[in-house]
Amino acid sequence: MRTMLDASRVRNPELFAKIVTPDKASEIILDGMNVGVSGFTPSGYPKKVTTALAEAISKGKQCRINLWTGASVGPEIEENLGVVNGIKSRMPYYAASNKSLKEGINSRRVDYIDQHLSHFAQQIDYGFYGNVDVAIIEVAAITKEGNLVLGSGVGNTPMLVKHAKHIIVEVNTTIPLSMEGMHDIYLCAKPPYRREIPIYHVGDRIGSPYVECGLDRIEYIVESDILDHVRTLTPPKPCQVKIAENLIDLLEHEQKMGRLPQDKLLPLQSGVGSIANAVLLGLDKSRFENLEMYSEILQDAVFTLIKNGKIAKASGCAFTPSSYVWKTYAENPDLYNKRIVLRPLDISNHPEVIRRLGVIALNTPIEFDIYGQANSSHIMGSSMMNGIGGSGDYMRNGYLTVFSTESTAKGGSISRIVPMVTHCDHTEHDTHVFITEQGIADIRGLAPTDRAKLIIEKCAHPDYRPMLLEYLRYVETHIKGHEPQDLQKVFNMAIRFQATGTMKLID
Amino acid sequence: MRTMLDASRVRNPELFAKIVTPDKASEIILDGMNVGVSGFTPSGYPKKVTTALAEAISKGKQCRINLWTGASVGPEIEENLGVVNGIKSRMPYYAASNKSLKEGINSRRVDYIDQHLSHFAQQIDYGFYGNVDVAIIEVAAITKEGNLVLGSGVGNTPMLVKHAKHIIVEVNTTIPLSMEGMHDIYLCAKPPYRREIPIYHVGDRIGSPYVECGLDRIEYIVESDILDHVRTLTPPKPCQVKIAENLIDLLEHEQKMGRLPQDKLLPLQSGVGSIANAVLLGLDKSRFENLEMYSEILQDAVFTLIKNGKIAKASGCAFTPSSYVWKTYAENPDLYNKRIVLRPLDISNHPEVIRRLGVIALNTPIEFDIYGQANSSHIMGSSMMNGIGGSGDYMRNGYLTVFSTESTAKGGSISRIVPMVTHCDHTEHDTHVFITEQGIADIRGLAPTDRAKLIIEKCAHPDYRPMLLEYLRYVETHIKGHEPQDLQKVFNMAIRFQATGTMKLID
Repeated sequence: MRTMLDASRVRNPELFAKIVTPDKASEIILDGMNVGVSGFTPSGYPKKVTTALAEAISKGKQCRINLWTGASVGPEIEENLGVVNGIKSRMPYYAASNKSLKEGINSRRVDYIDQHLSHFAQQIDYGFYGNVDVAIIEVAAITKEGNLVLGSGVGNTPMLVKHAKHIIVEVNTTIPLSMEGMHDIYLCAKPPYRREIPIYHVGDRIGSPYVECGLDRIEYIVESDILDHVRTLTPPKPCQVKIAENLIDLLEHEQKMGRLPQDKLLPLQSGVGSIANAVLLGLDKSRFENLEMYSEILQDAVFTLIKNGKIAKASGCAFTPSSYVWKTYAENPDLYNKRIVLRPLDISNHPEVIRRLGVIALNTPIEFDIYGQANSSHIMGSSMMNGIGGSGDYMRNGYLTVFSTESTAKGGSISRIVPMVTHCDHTEHDTHVFITEQGIADIRGLAPTDRAKLIIEKCAHPDYRPMLLEYLRYVETHIKGHEPQDLQKVFNMAIRFQATGTMKLID
Repeated sequence: MRTMLDASRVRNPELFAKIVTPDKASEIILDGMNVGVSGFTPSGYPKKVTTALAEAISKGKQCRINLWTGASVGPEIEENLGVVNGIKSRMPYYAASNKSLKEGINSRRVDYIDQHLSHFAQQIDYGFYGNVDVAIIEVAAITKEGNLVLGSGVGNTPMLVKHAKHIIVEVNTTIPLSMEGMHDIYLCAKPPYRREIPIYHVGDRIGSPYVECGLDRIEYIVESDILDHVRTLTPPKPCQVKIAENLIDLLEHEQKMGRLPQDKLLPLQSGVGSIANAVLLGLDKSRFENLEMYSEILQDAVFTLIKNGKIAKASGCAFTPSSYVWKTYAENPDLYNKRIVLRPLDISNHPEVIRRLGVIALNTPIEFDIYGQANSSHIMGSSMMNGIGGSGDYMRNGYLTVFSTESTAKGGSISRIVPMVTHCDHTEHDTHVFITEQGIADIRGLAPTDRAKLIIEKCAHPDYRPMLLEYLRYVETHIKGHEPQDLQKVFNMAIRFQATGTMKLID
């Protein structure tokens, strides 16, 4: 077949015979198969074969697959397969970025199994979910030995490759070859033979720069030149800037009180989205130096902070391949290659490493309650917005764990602070501090009703404080118990929103 | 002072000058102090000084302390200080074993802060809760160097000793000196200097047999001969035996399916109580050999299984010092010394080790819901029965995680399977299998409504299946969403129980 691929991308001449069209490659994917794809968020995911499969389905091929990913992926998978009803089930993550898949999940046409992201790879390894029938892996290049040089997202790729019966490789010529060496691929052995993960500093390298695969196991090669379909982050809003300022105040205070090391901060984890970006941009202006990140995904701001000399080392399982990031990277690839390590998802999110390094975990919930439980996934208790992702991995195991969010949503008609979360992803035992634009509630060492008073006072929006205080006063006087809740009234705010479109009382 | 202590218990002659009465020692405990005590459950806790303190309070001393423990302790602390209102706050665990303290916590007179047990020691180390003003430590002996030989419970003792400003040692002459060497005391360094915990097999020893203290830091020594006040386990009921049988079926099935190693089982963790004991006694009759335990507390049955040659190695932070256990131990101390390792609580429960060893986690919830969330702590959402303890440490990090319980409580008037737990300690992402006397629900890889069908069918009591199925049918047809819940109806079973004394519909 004619190809644009050359020896820089496909380094063993034997492999050229395996280059096929996406259509041809997609033919091995059959109804009911477990199909694993590379990448993490719209970063490093394959695009050609799934598009071809979707076309075949639209022309009559009977095929619904079980889609195994790192996290959310891009429209060439979710949208294209979503509209033709080609996805039967989905693990371990989904984000509300795609309408047809979201509709499929919330109408329960698509089975979605939400998981802690550190769990999925090992559970594939344990055989909990059956075989990986096909793995489709996007790469920058294939080495002479048939090993895979990845791009901006690692995700669960190494484990998917380990177990795949059929492997299709999409070689994407837009991925800079200079990235080679940025990855650190390490597979944990299964118990009872597992050893420690020997990461003691954010930048430690413990594995191989390639995903080991081998010439024989590569069944098809497809060429690609489609860029990752990155969602643009909106610039921080004033109240997000305020949240970032509150967070930096907290970190400075903790250092002053001797509860954080004095010379430099512990490594930071930062969730996805605009607030996370605002926090990093806030740190850029702070007095903290030599910052380190041990995180899941490295967003745009990480590149800004590396460029500005603020971030010394950053570890993640992917970076966001936005046009800004690629432009910044291209200006000085060596700088970023030295500063960044990309790891498998189960290593970036591993309890062992997070706890050992003492990661400061910063995440954003959908809502949290007066006693300190948090909801990361379900709107009004039922409707999936996005999965729990890695938030549980970091919030359970971090040195200091912070949930930050705006105090309201939907133009003020929803209070993100409620008497009881309508879905619980994080228990009261997992969060130390809550931050909104209103202030900081440090609930460490406080009994439930003291936590409630502080959270309402410091974090709730003034519009909702009286309502929340009234609930607290009611249960304190009418309900016996360590953490008093009135099961008949506890969801009244959510029920009111469902009935009237606002949690506010209408006179 | 005249003393029964001799050089076998107090091995440095200088120390004899520090022997005082409990009254004298208790004088250093002042109002508002943080007081740490040794032990874990009623195992290895001090008895004399707290009793003396309670007496002083009853005679007019103004003193309410912040009590820091391993877990629940015995009546010499909880009952004696509880009735004189001597406990201001309590971390990190409490169990419903003591009436006055339970009443104090549920009336919110006592501030109780419930925590994951693997978290507390490191958070003391991080300075989150202030100083350890006084530590009271029960020991078998004090070495020539002033180091402490513990008894049957380690708990958080090493961290409490590390940080204590004042140390009182209770030397208990009933603890067999032959236990010396059973302990393996290891303190994790603080980030950024922390290394791996080098445990690769259940029996690995990585630390010292003593808690390092030093002669100078021991302020007072008090002698004691009071046995630990152990709560008697009831023999397994028929439905608990059935649960144990179901569990063994599960383990055999997993091995057969190749999802567990073939040659021997992975290490077991087993929670506290009668079901846990039934499970172990069930294993005694099973075909499994060379069992290993990596658990929190080692109950009576562990000694039976070691005696019978079924358990090869057992690691915990304490064992239950019942009269049966002491008698069994005394028959052959060398056997148990070789088989058992007692570790600090943050090591017995450490995510790093639990995940590395691939522990099979077996715990008992108060209730669980159709979607897989579990409540370990609060009755009807408000009233504390017992803390989350180590269940979160094991259920989040285990290789295979199982919640087992009877399907009903209170003579059938409560279904332990409900539409939504009234308090969530374990999210749907943390449990693989639920077991009741009715059957086994393996929910791995199932979407929420499929989980619900299976849990209702396999685990719910027949009396409650129609009610639960009706709820599920209702939300499936009326509520849009990945995990449909009707916030107006979701707690109806609990509300009905509160109103009528039963969850059953009365005709």
